[in-house]
Amino acid sequence: MADPAPLSPLAPKKFPVLPPIAGVRFATVAAGVRYAGRTDVMLALFDRPAQVAGVFTRSKCPSAPVDWCRANLPEGQARALIVNSGNANAFTGAAGLSAVAEVAAAAAKATGAAPHEIYMASTGVIGEPLEAGRITRALDKLVAGAKPDALMDAANAIMTTDTFPKVATARVKVGEREVTINSIAKGAGMIAPDMATMLSFVFTDAPIAAPALQALLSKSVNRSFNCITVDSDTSTSDTLLLFATGAPEIADAADPRLSAFRRALDKLLLDLAQQVVRDGEGAHKFIEVRVAGAASRKAAKRIALSIANSPLVKTACAGEDANWGRVVMAVGKAGEKAERDKLDIFFGDIRVAHAGQRDPGYDEAAASAYMKRKAIVIGVHVGVGTATAKVWTCDLTKDYVAINGDYRS
Amino acid sequence: MADPAPLSPLAPKKFPVLPPIAGVRFATVAAGVRYAGRTDVMLALFDRPAQVAGVFTRSKCPSAPVDWCRANLPEGQARALIVNSGNANAFTGAAGLSAVAEVAAAAAKATGAAPHEIYMASTGVIGEPLEAGRITRALDKLVAGAKPDALMDAANAIMTTDTFPKVATARVKVGEREVTINSIAKGAGMIAPDMATMLSFVFTDAPIAAPALQALLSKSVNRSFNCITVDSDTSTSDTLLLFATGAPEIADAADPRLSAFRRALDKLLLDLAQQVVRDGEGAHKFIEVRVAGAASRKAAKRIALSIANSPLVKTACAGEDANWGRVVMAVGKAGEKAERDKLDIFFGDIRVAHAGQRDPGYDEAAASAYMKRKAIVIGVHVGVGTATAKVWTCDLTKDYVAINGDYRS
Repeated sequence: MADPAPLSPLAPKKFPVLPPIAGVRFATVAAGVRYAGRTDVMLALFDRPAQVAGVFTRSKCPSAPVDWCRANLPEGQARALIVNSGNANAFTGAAGLSAVAEVAAAAAKATGAAPHEIYMASTGVIGEPLEAGRITRALDKLVAGAKPDALMDAANAIMTTDTFPKVATARVKVGEREVTINSIAKGAGMIAPDMATMLSFVFTDAPIAAPALQALLSKSVNRSFNCITVDSDTSTSDTLLLFATGAPEIADAADPRLSAFRRALDKLLLDLAQQVVRDGEGAHKFIEVRVAGAASRKAAKRIALSIANSPLVKTACAGEDANWGRVVMAVGKAGEKAERDKLDIFFGDIRVAHAGQRDPGYDEAAASAYMKRKAIVIGVHVGVGTATAKVWTCDLTKDYVAINGDYRS
Repeated sequence: MADPAPLSPLAPKKFPVLPPIAGVRFATVAAGVRYAGRTDVMLALFDRPAQVAGVFTRSKCPSAPVDWCRANLPEGQARALIVNSGNANAFTGAAGLSAVAEVAAAAAKATGAAPHEIYMASTGVIGEPLEAGRITRALDKLVAGAKPDALMDAANAIMTTDTFPKVATARVKVGEREVTINSIAKGAGMIAPDMATMLSFVFTDAPIAAPALQALLSKSVNRSFNCITVDSDTSTSDTLLLFATGAPEIADAADPRLSAFRRALDKLLLDLAQQVVRDGEGAHKFIEVRVAGAASRKAAKRIALSIANSPLVKTACAGEDANWGRVVMAVGKAGEKAERDKLDIFFGDIRVAHAGQRDPGYDEAAASAYMKRKAIVIGVHVGVGTATAKVWTCDLTKDYVAINGDYRS
C-alpha cells in the first residue's frame, strides 16, 4: 500500500465532541483484517434492540454485507453493528456470504441476539476472501470493552484512504424530549471500490419506529449523500444506516413532533456528505454547483451532476482556470432541456456568461482571482423553467491520478 | 497556451498516401484565427455540387456552425467545406450566427454557389467571438490555390491539441466502378470544448445520392465514433460530414452494389475513431473494452461505456494495475442487468475473475505483466444473455490533468 496521503487541505480545523447516547456503546480493535498497526473493526452494541433504517448502493454487483443488511432491514431491529475496513467482502461469491453468516452467528451468540439483528458493513479491497475468524475471534473483547463514549474511535477504525474521520452531532427536541443525533462517515466519494466506499452510521436516542426512520432517511439522503460526487464511480458497498435507541413511540414520519428532528437530520447528513467531498481523493478545491431555471427538479439535478462529474470542469478548477466554456459543454451534454441563448453562468457572484454568450462585462482578472479560492461556487441559470438543484464535488488533480494509479501496484 | 504536447506514444508509425479524388480540391491558409505560425483554415472545394450527409453532436448547446450545417443538410448538396481551428464559434450568440452567415455568403460568392451549399465547422476556444473577416479575406487565395492532392495539409490545419493528423484511405468497388474513400479527423476524444472537439470529413467519388449516404453514415458511426470515449465529455461542435462527388446514381443504402463500400466505410471510420483515442489527451495506453453475455446490445454498450468512462478503471490502467475490482464496480454502476455470481472478467486472455469471484487460477504476476502493454483488452462476460459490444478508450494520466488544468491559465 502507498504511504497514507497527507491531510486534505479541505479538512475541518477541529472536530465536535460526540456526547454519549443512552442505549448504545462502541468498541474498536486492531484485528489485522488487512492493515497492521491500526484499528480496523468497530462494534456498535445496543443494550436493547434498536430501530433501524438503511439505504444502500444502487450497484447491480453489491457486496455480501449489503445483501445481508438489505435482507434483514424489513425486520427493523438491530442489536449490533460490525464494520471492518481493509476488505470489502465484495465479489467474493459464496465464500463472501459464508463469511457474513459466520460473523453474524458469532456476534449473535456474543450479544444474545438473533443473527438477523446483526448489521454489517465492510470496506476495503474487492475480491479478496474475508477471513471471518479475524473478526469473530475479536468479538468477546469488543463486547466486553464497549463504552458509550467511543464513537470517535469507531470513526477512525472504519477509515481507508480517508485523511480525517468524519463526524457530526446535533441536539434537538422531539416533542418535549431533548434527543441527540451522532453520526460518523468514511469515504472519499461514491467511488472507489478498493478504497473509498462511502459508509455512514447515525445513532440517536429519539423514540422513532423503523418505518418512520426509513422514510426520514430515504428523503434526507436525496438532498445530501445523493448530491455528492467525487469521480462519478459508485461503490459496490455504499451503506448508510440510522439507528434509534428510544422506545419506538413515533411511527409516522409526518408526525409534527419530528419537524425539528427532520431538519437536524437533513443538516447533519449534508454536513457529513460535504465532509466526504472535502476528503475526496486528491481534492484541493471544494466545489458547489447550483443550477436554477431548469424544467424540473430532476433535470436540474442531472445538469448539476453533469457539471460536477465532468473531468474537464474538474481539471479546470484544479488549474484555477475560469473556463466557463466547459460548463456550457457540460450543460449541453446533460441531455436536458436548456436554452443556449438564455444561459447564464456564474463563478461565485461573477456572471461570466449571459444570454448565451460571454458577459459583456466579463473581467478575466476577477474571475481568475475567484478561482484561486479553496471553495468555488459554479452557478448556472438554464433559462427554461423554475426548478433548482445543488450538488457538491471536488476538483480532479494529479494527486487523484497518483492515489488511484499507484495504489495496488 | 501551453507548449504543444509531445507526440502521443500511441501515434501511428507512418501515414498512408491519400490519392486524389475526382471533383474535389483542397487548400489551407494561415489566417491567424487564433494561432500564429501555422495553418488554421482549410477549404474543400467541389467542382460540381457534391452529395452530402452528416452527423453532429447531441449537445443541447451546439455551436453556430453545427446549427448551420444541420439546417442545410436536407438540401443534400455541398459546393464547399470551410473549417477553422483556434475558435469553436460556440456560445457566441447572435454574433456567432452572423459570423457563420458572413463566411457562407463570402464563400458562396467566391465559388459561385448558394450559401446553403457551404458547409462549415469550427474547433477551438468557446465563447470568443469569431472574426469572420480573418476567414473571408483568405477565401480568394484558398479558392485559387485549391489542389486535388492537398488533403494531408487540410488534416494538419484542423488540429488543436492533436499530436498527429488523423487520415485513412480505402479503394473499393461500387458495382463495376473502382472508387476511393479518403478521410481526415481531428480530436482527442468526444470531448474538450476548448480544444478537442471531434471533427471528421470523408470524401469519395462514389456515385451515391445524399439519402443513401446519410443512411450509410448514420449506421456506420454507431460502431465507430459513437463507440469511443476519452473522458466522457461531449463537445458542442462534434461534426462528421461525408461528401460524394460522383453522379448520384445510387439512392438506396441497401443497394447490393454498395456492400463493399459499406464495409470499407465502416472500417475506415473505425480506424479514424481509434486514431482519435490513440491521440487522447495524455493517453499512454489504448484500451479496448469487450462486453459479452449482456441482455441486449444497448445494455452491452452501456456496460462497456461505464467501464471505459470510469476514472478508477482508467487510472488503474495508467498505473498498470490489474485492478479487476474496479471493473466489477463499473459493471455494477452501469445500472444494466448483470449476474454478479456469473460474472467473468479478463485482461487479454487472462481470466482474472470467474463466476463472481477471483479466478481460482489467478496469477497476479501474469496479470501485472499484461498491464504493462501499450494496448490492453478488458473483457467482461455479464452472464445474463448473448448480446455483445466493443468500445475503445485510453487511460487517465497525470498528463491529462496537466493538459486540461494548465491550458488557459
